Amino acid sequence: MNKHVGTETIRQWALKDIGRSNLELVEAAKPVPADNEVLVKIAAVSLNYRDNLLVETGLGFSRPNGQPMVPGSDAAGEVAAVGSAVTRFKPGDQVISTFMAGWVEGLGPGTARQPTSATLGGPLKGLLADYAVLDQECWVKAPKSLNAAAASTLVCAGLTAWTALVERGRLRAGQTVVVQGTGGVALFGLQIAAAHGAETLVISGDDAKLERAKALGATHGINRHNQDWVEAVWEMTGDRGADHILEIIGGAHLGKSLEAAAVGGRVSLIGILEGFDVSGSFAMLARKRLIVEGIQVGHRRSLEDLVRAVDRAGIKPVIDAEYEMADLPVALDHLARGPFGKIVVAVNPKK
Amino acid sequence: MNKHVGTETIRQWALKDIGRSNLELVEAAKPVPADNEVLVKIAAVSLNYRDNLLVETGLGFSRPNGQPMVPGSDAAGEVAAVGSAVTRFKPGDQVISTFMAGWVEGLGPGTARQPTSATLGGPLKGLLADYAVLDQECWVKAPKSLNAAAASTLVCAGLTAWTALVERGRLRAGQTVVVQGTGGVALFGLQIAAAHGAETLVISGDDAKLERAKALGATHGINRHNQDWVEAVWEMTGDRGADHILEIIGGAHLGKSLEAAAVGGRVSLIGILEGFDVSGSFAMLARKRLIVEGIQVGHRRSLEDLVRAVDRAGIKPVIDAEYEMADLPVALDHLARGPFGKIVVAVNPKK
Amino acid sequence: MNKHVGTETIRQWALKDIGRSNLELVEAAKPVPADNEVLVKIAAVSLNYRDNLLVETGLGFSRPNGQPMVPGSDAAGEVAAVGSAVTRFKPGDQVISTFMAGWVEGLGPGTARQPTSATLGGPLKGLLADYAVLDQECWVKAPKSLNAAAASTLVCAGLTAWTALVERGRLRAGQTVVVQGTGGVALFGLQIAAAHGAETLVISGDDAKLERAKALGATHGINRHNQDWVEAVWEMTGDRGADHILEIIGGAHLGKSLEAAAVGGRVSLIGILEGFDVSGSFAMLARKRLIVEGIQVGHRRSLEDLVRAVDRAGIKPVIDAEYEMADLPVALDHLARGPFGKIVVAVNPKK
Amino acid sequence: MNKHVGTETIRQWALKDIGRSNLELVEAAKPVPADNEVLVKIAAVSLNYRDNLLVETGLGFSRPNGQPMVPGSDAAGEVAAVGSAVTRFKPGDQVISTFMAGWVEGLGPGTARQPTSATLGGPLKGLLADYAVLDQECWVKAPKSLNAAAASTLVCAGLTAWTALVERGRLRAGQTVVVQGTGGVALFGLQIAAAHGAETLVISGDDAKLERAKALGATHGINRHNQDWVEAVWEMTGDRGADHILEIIGGAHLGKSLEAAAVGGRVSLIGILEGFDVSGSFAMLARKRLIVEGIQVGHRRSLEDLVRAVDRAGIKPVIDAEYEMADLPVALDHLARGPFGKIVVAVNPKK
Repeated sequence: MNKHVGTETIRQWALKDIGRSNLELVEAAKPVPADNEVLVKIAAVSLNYRDNLLVETGLGFSRPNGQPMVPGSDAAGEVAAVGSAVTRFKPGDQVISTFMAGWVEGLGPGTARQPTSATLGGPLKGLLADYAVLDQECWVKAPKSLNAAAASTLVCAGLTAWTALVERGRLRAGQTVVVQGTGGVALFGLQIAAAHGAETLVISGDDAKLERAKALGATHGINRHNQDWVEAVWEMTGDRGADHILEIIGGAHLGKSLEAAAVGGRVSLIGILEGFDVSGSFAMLARKRLIVEGIQVGHRRSLEDLVRAVDRAGIKPVIDAEYEMADLPVALDHLARGPFGKIVVAVNPKK
Repeated sequence: MNKHVGTETIRQWALKDIGRSNLELVEAAKPVPADNEVLVKIAAVSLNYRDNLLVETGLGFSRPNGQPMVPGSDAAGEVAAVGSAVTRFKPGDQVISTFMAGWVEGLGPGTARQPTSATLGGPLKGLLADYAVLDQECWVKAPKSLNAAAASTLVCAGLTAWTALVERGRLRAGQTVVVQGTGGVALFGLQIAAAHGAETLVISGDDAKLERAKALGATHGINRHNQDWVEAVWEMTGDRGADHILEIIGGAHLGKSLEAAAVGGRVSLIGILEGFDVSGSFAMLARKRLIVEGIQVGHRRSLEDLVRAVDRAGIKPVIDAEYEMADLPVALDHLARGPFGKIVVAVNPKK
Repeated sequence: MNKHVGTETIRQWALKDIGRSNLELVEAAKPVPADNEVLVKIAAVSLNYRDNLLVETGLGFSRPNGQPMVPGSDAAGEVAAVGSAVTRFKPGDQVISTFMAGWVEGLGPGTARQPTSATLGGPLKGLLADYAVLDQECWVKAPKSLNAAAASTLVCAGLTAWTALVERGRLRAGQTVVVQGTGGVALFGLQIAAAHGAETLVISGDDAKLERAKALGATHGINRHNQDWVEAVWEMTGDRGADHILEIIGGAHLGKSLEAAAVGGRVSLIGILEGFDVSGSFAMLARKRLIVEGIQVGHRRSLEDLVRAVDRAGIKPVIDAEYEMADLPVALDHLARGPFGKIVVAVNPKK
Repeated sequence: MNKHVGTETIRQWALKDIGRSNLELVEAAKPVPADNEVLVKIAAVSLNYRDNLLVETGLGFSRPNGQPMVPGSDAAGEVAAVGSAVTRFKPGDQVISTFMAGWVEGLGPGTARQPTSATLGGPLKGLLADYAVLDQECWVKAPKSLNAAAASTLVCAGLTAWTALVERGRLRAGQTVVVQGTGGVALFGLQIAAAHGAETLVISGDDAKLERAKALGATHGINRHNQDWVEAVWEMTGDRGADHILEIIGGAHLGKSLEAAAVGGRVSLIGILEGFDVSGSFAMLARKRLIVEGIQVGHRRSLEDLVRAVDRAGIKPVIDAEYEMADLPVALDHLARGPFGKIVVAVNPKK
């Protein structure tokens, strides 16, 4: 727990207080791994919607001792050094981070009163830095088939889609999956579903993005400006409806997903673009025996499963743009505009 | 399918049009079973909240050919005659009805566009009659340990609680179950949970009912007028929360259930006393990885499981009052006031 | 139930008694569908190992009234006529048969004392005939993407692999599947696993067959004459072992599968080439927490799922040879030698 | 990991080499907890069949550096001291041990080549000592409703039955459970099944033990000397068979369990009294779609669930006899004769 500190310095993003103007690239002491810790030379950090929320709202996290927060949770890099008690990794290993400390498998930590929040990049120190240390239990071997930028996108976006569709959803060939939009989780949902032989319907307001989604393997694209997407799902499935829906918009939009779902279908709650309170019709829920499940990224064993799946099935994460370390603010702006897939910050690009 | 008609007459409740004044006890021809049908001498019909809704709103069902509807879905009785192709039953068998025609097991009928509604007592002809015929697939052997009045309560109320807690919920000893109120489903939830060695917390606004619930085996009673029931659940479970919640109130009340639920907990949507649209916090759903599932009674195999469980575990359904056939309106009034357990109409009481 | 009989005649294979010499192509009256029945003009029947066992051993089935048995369970064809109460099909529909009458979903029929055997082609009348009638519940819509010969292979071989890997096994991308040999079930196992993004290891004693399996998408082939296949599985999976094994050889060979299986892995018992009694090490079973499950083809809902998966994922069943109706004995000989995939009898080939 | 050693001495059982004559009660240095460790004053250790095997065969474990082994895995006691990094416990807490180090939840450790064996009392140091230290992750809070002797029996025997019936088996009220014999796991199986409202059939060769089992809540006792127990199970269940069978005898006896099992039933492999190789009929397995699963005690989350269940459902473990620390050899003799329930060694009985 005691982080020994060396004399070398590293670059690190720090958020002194809420607000973009308080985000600074600073110098910090290079961390030294304690007995159970692994020091990683970060190569890439991929950004999430949540990172912008942290900068703009603080997400309700207190800053202990007034210390600046370090944003960024989804990193890939190379093990630079290991503590004396480390058994899971050795220097030179390519690794990715796990979003939620200590959730190895099963239900996971937390209580009814205090749902867990031991998550990286707030409240825990994040990874937008040249080097970072975490307990050895908080890293996972990276897939062999991806470079660091692509590997970093699995940590939250990839794992969220995997948890919803596979770990919890038992996705199988021949089922129908609806994904909303073309952001990071949506495109992973599309690719994971396609890798399992499922039919995929992508909903977007942008024909160009729908074309790109089809090039990635989407069975159908539905432009929600041109047609009622629920009616479109009914028609495309011969009235059967969708077995899985990734609800990324949230709020009252859940009601539409309930209409689009097949009997016994599953709606995975992932996003909150339209509001923190979700709502929908009891009649749809009861008469179709639907399941609505809240998804919070996923556990480490699932991430290890996803890594194997990515290597085996040849899934290539979609990166809309890569930015240099110093350009984090530009990257966050791009993220706020709604990328096609993921935005990645290259921290220590291999030369 | 063609219902042959004999010359004997029977009593039958008929609803000519929406509204209590259109509910009449009439004479009708005694039905004769077709090849696959079973004729049952009805002994008892237990009432549900839904029966009052049918009388008052019609539930949106059309009356084919302007025919009056026959209410009542939950019957117990004795097989009086069987069609030539019937293999599942013989005269003299004690049976109970199944609420949803054709749902034997698995996901069940219906599509995304047309959720199923082949339910008895609207739109299908109900069972508040001296005799009724149904396809042999729509009856189940009654439990040996219950009389007809008690057996009839399993069909909807018992099976709904069983589906939520056992068939879908995988209830196990040591878990915590919250039931809302002391109506028919709530008390079955309490008794089924107790029979599985679970802790049961009953919420009510009436101390006398809470005392009766404790006499039935409730671990704790929570008077929602005296305390915040969510806080009470947290305290009683050492902050762990409830593994299963039977959400019977509905509407925005779902939000409270999400707060009371344990990490990985399940909220079963059953009732709609507070509104047809349910809503709650995304943060609770996601950060505790909760499951919200719509429950529509259940399938026939589950009902057969429940019958075995009732016989084995000695569950005795709670009947608040029994009324005679002619007193259906009085029985419906009692139901509307909120009974403690079930209201039953004795159709052909054994002498 | 009463099969009306018309005046037209059809061809039909009949087994008067045990033994190949008692197998004859005879004339029979063309069946007429009863109220709930569907008459199908058979286009193709695919053969199973079990069909040879029936001819050679009778499989223990009695011949009621000394009637000859009609072999063949896996048929595809076109609906020629329907009974008056039929709602699931209309003339012109392309359909395939279901192997086990009355198993729609769930646990299925049978008791501990009397495991079910209402299977086609013994003891029930089989489908090696120009026309056949079955209850409407015993047919399923054929996949749109396959011709009749290919569609007929789904009924037993395809569904057995699907039940083992998907319905029961929850197969997911990135897992490792071992299939033994290159017969009908094995190749379906390989193709279904590949369609789900899984790694597939095929074991065979024939390098040429291994090459053909790789062309179908097998990740690795293991020639059991050249190496210890268990050791090979360990090496290929970095010691992790196989998540799913289709045990097709049976007998004491199960012991090897238990060694090859991963912690928490599943061995699906399908075949009995090496003996009716299966055996293996308790230590392997307990210390790796393995599941061994007996697979008996599967239920109708699974077959419908498989049909959707075949259409969606583009699975093309492997047919080693097609024979004409009159050449059933030659086809059975080919089957006995061990085909690569399936052997099909073309009954009424489309001109 | 480095176990600091103090100057106080404790008593400890040591096995210098294979054979009862090498089992000695010796003096040893009292352990001092390292940072992550918890020192427990042992109050009771319950014995397992495996403890006798260790003494007599060594179970194939090597003794590192020729160090004597310390037997005993199932302990209850009070936390005496905690290391500086311990967060899960404080001095004074009542705790029980976990049998398999590091299996918190999910599939658990091990590979196909090297199934896990990080188990206490061989190869890891056991707990038959006045004091013992283990990593904080290897202890669980004891149930409030049991004394130390009873609590210690949950660690292996209780958890094995729980894993088989509840965690893996999804036991529910109304199901039928067969337990073989009246040893520790069998009686826990009986009590856990009864606590879930299940029917329980106990098989034994001893009428007196059957009477005692009935007094514990067994629905029926079957004396296997007087009748074919499979036939008895069929009769008692109306031919339906048993949903769960705890196979404790092993070897070819598995074949009988397969006959007694219901369609879709589960046979949990637990014991090996009749041999290390288990065997049975493929026809039973396939035609009844049975699951045979190897059970290796269970994971920590399940043990925590069991503790809650014991407190809630009032399960009182059956202890056949308690022995003093010095009488371990006598206790092992009693164990070898086949006790009714558990044998416990009282290490530091509360005065």
